[in-house]
Amino acid sequence: MSKFLPIIAITMGDPAGIGPEIAAKSLAASTVHQICKPVVVGDAKVLEQAINIAAVNLKIRSINSIAQADFQPGIMNVWDLDNVYIHHLEYGKVSINAGKAAFEYVKMAIDLALKKDVDATVTGPINKESLNRAGHHFSGHTEIYAHYTKTRQYAMLLVLGHLRVIHVSTHVSLKQACDLVKKERILEVIRLLHEACQQFGITAPKIGVAGLNPHAGDGGLFGNEELKEILPAIEQANILGMDVVGPVPADTLFSKAKGGGYDGCVAMFHDQGHIPFKLEGFIWDAKNNRMKSVQGVNITLGLPIIRVSVDHGTAFEIAGKGLASPDALSLAIKYATTMVKNKGKISLAKRNINNMRVVQCMDKL
Amino acid sequence: MSKFLPIIAITMGDPAGIGPEIAAKSLAASTVHQICKPVVVGDAKVLEQAINIAAVNLKIRSINSIAQADFQPGIMNVWDLDNVYIHHLEYGKVSINAGKAAFEYVKMAIDLALKKDVDATVTGPINKESLNRAGHHFSGHTEIYAHYTKTRQYAMLLVLGHLRVIHVSTHVSLKQACDLVKKERILEVIRLLHEACQQFGITAPKIGVAGLNPHAGDGGLFGNEELKEILPAIEQANILGMDVVGPVPADTLFSKAKGGGYDGCVAMFHDQGHIPFKLEGFIWDAKNNRMKSVQGVNITLGLPIIRVSVDHGTAFEIAGKGLASPDALSLAIKYATTMVKNKGKISLAKRNINNMRVVQCMDKL
Repeated sequence: MSKFLPIIAITMGDPAGIGPEIAAKSLAASTVHQICKPVVVGDAKVLEQAINIAAVNLKIRSINSIAQADFQPGIMNVWDLDNVYIHHLEYGKVSINAGKAAFEYVKMAIDLALKKDVDATVTGPINKESLNRAGHHFSGHTEIYAHYTKTRQYAMLLVLGHLRVIHVSTHVSLKQACDLVKKERILEVIRLLHEACQQFGITAPKIGVAGLNPHAGDGGLFGNEELKEILPAIEQANILGMDVVGPVPADTLFSKAKGGGYDGCVAMFHDQGHIPFKLEGFIWDAKNNRMKSVQGVNITLGLPIIRVSVDHGTAFEIAGKGLASPDALSLAIKYATTMVKNKGKISLAKRNINNMRVVQCMDKL
Repeated sequence: MSKFLPIIAITMGDPAGIGPEIAAKSLAASTVHQICKPVVVGDAKVLEQAINIAAVNLKIRSINSIAQADFQPGIMNVWDLDNVYIHHLEYGKVSINAGKAAFEYVKMAIDLALKKDVDATVTGPINKESLNRAGHHFSGHTEIYAHYTKTRQYAMLLVLGHLRVIHVSTHVSLKQACDLVKKERILEVIRLLHEACQQFGITAPKIGVAGLNPHAGDGGLFGNEELKEILPAIEQANILGMDVVGPVPADTLFSKAKGGGYDGCVAMFHDQGHIPFKLEGFIWDAKNNRMKSVQGVNITLGLPIIRVSVDHGTAFEIAGKGLASPDALSLAIKYATTMVKNKGKISLAKRNINNMRVVQCMDKL
């Protein structure tokens, strides 16, 4: 009797980065096969080399349909796009070829998920400069996924331990971010966060929403976004049956969340969420002048498919040396499988979001 | 032969808060008398009660001139303003009387420092609402100090372990804070931070300056404050002989600083500095629904006198119960004494700031 295990497409990431070697290290660990059926979308030759670099025991099986896969531990199923000239590959270098190849893995993973050939996708790190030099003008994975799945309302969620932080906005100037603090958008990200928490198995999540201004505006003394936009969104979320509090001063919210005070947090802008997240997950080694640990995962919410990612980059300075830690990738795979398993359990938010339109219509009467 | 010990005025803070009891606990520890000569500015009757609440062994000596003080361990010298009706005092309550009394301690400490009767001041927590109800319309200590010392250019520095964070702006809306990111002000706070680090004994501090926008603007893609204001300030600081780098993306800066990558950090706005600071120093106890630890000190830089403070509040919910930890107050006293001792060692920054005006004039030619 075999238990259900979700099929996860894992993109190899930029061939010149640490993506291939962390994929090798992660899949060599027996724990991964206990929770899912992994398929790496990448280049078999690069992955063969990565297995040697990582000094792990894995045999590559090139496939171009899921039916060909053999999900035994010790085997790395590679959806082989065969798109890297291995003799030209230079670790740690920005290049058009690497950017082009990395883009193709992402595009293929999205296609496989949309066709339901795989249950979820996990992305390895790509290099924005290589991507752009290859003619793909996206800020990153999130925008590629949104484009190819035709998604308009999406949000970035960062997860590490008790910290689950969703963002009202991301890659815009801070001034623009202030203008994007709007009731509708805040309610949208609250709903996405609520749903995501349920996908992680938290049935009735408690959500804390940050203020935008110092001391959450101190009753309107420093800015009025809290009273005008954030509080009305929270009140609406409460009407919809979600347990949401705030606006909480941002400098208190994340301390409380870290200690388990909230199941999820809403950050009003990129750095408001990224500062606490990286302070917890990124450990600096002053002696060797580099990050010695980069934990945490990045999840794009609002898509029709599941996408979980490591939150670190290609780490060009250590690529090809076998030094990179696979911990973040293994955690991303774990989150993706959990999200697949709990997909059917999302009830309250979905049901209420349908009611929401009714409430909103009534608001306008 | 007695070694030089600085005289430190410690304000009792709001009589209804945890100020009196943490003063009692802190001064009862022998370590304080080894590094300084403490004088509490407060009300002797309240402090007598606080000694009982804290269950420590201290004898009060009321004074109204420093010459009357007896700096033996076991004695608490109290500059007694005798301004609290002890039988009316209710712990944990906002009141006009408590606000008025707390204000008077601060005012007296400032006067003592300006007259050089004491070498530095350390402030206990006050309640903003009580202060305002008593007719003193200040946002907090910082503004009181600035007002009575006639200081225009000052800045808030938070200190905890490796984290030493100064702020370009504090209690203004985030939109206003964006507008306050100006070269002159950034250079001013870099100079203040550099000087403060030297007062802590770091002779050649390495300073990291945060960007304002996500990814520090990503080369101008998301906002131009980095290129227009922050980078020119850093370049000017380098010309003046200070070791300053940036703009560093804020979500990386504080992770590196925490690990010892920088001796000091410049935050562009209140929460940018307060989020990492409180994430490190404030530990949430989810079970009892309160902060179980609130470490770190707050220093006002730019004043003609030294002012160090605890960074926590009056903690009305536990006031009068003997539960409060004196750790932050003891740390504040330690920082104040260190700053007194290293006062004479500040050379480079002071010398260069005089040169700065010359350089600036040349800029305009």
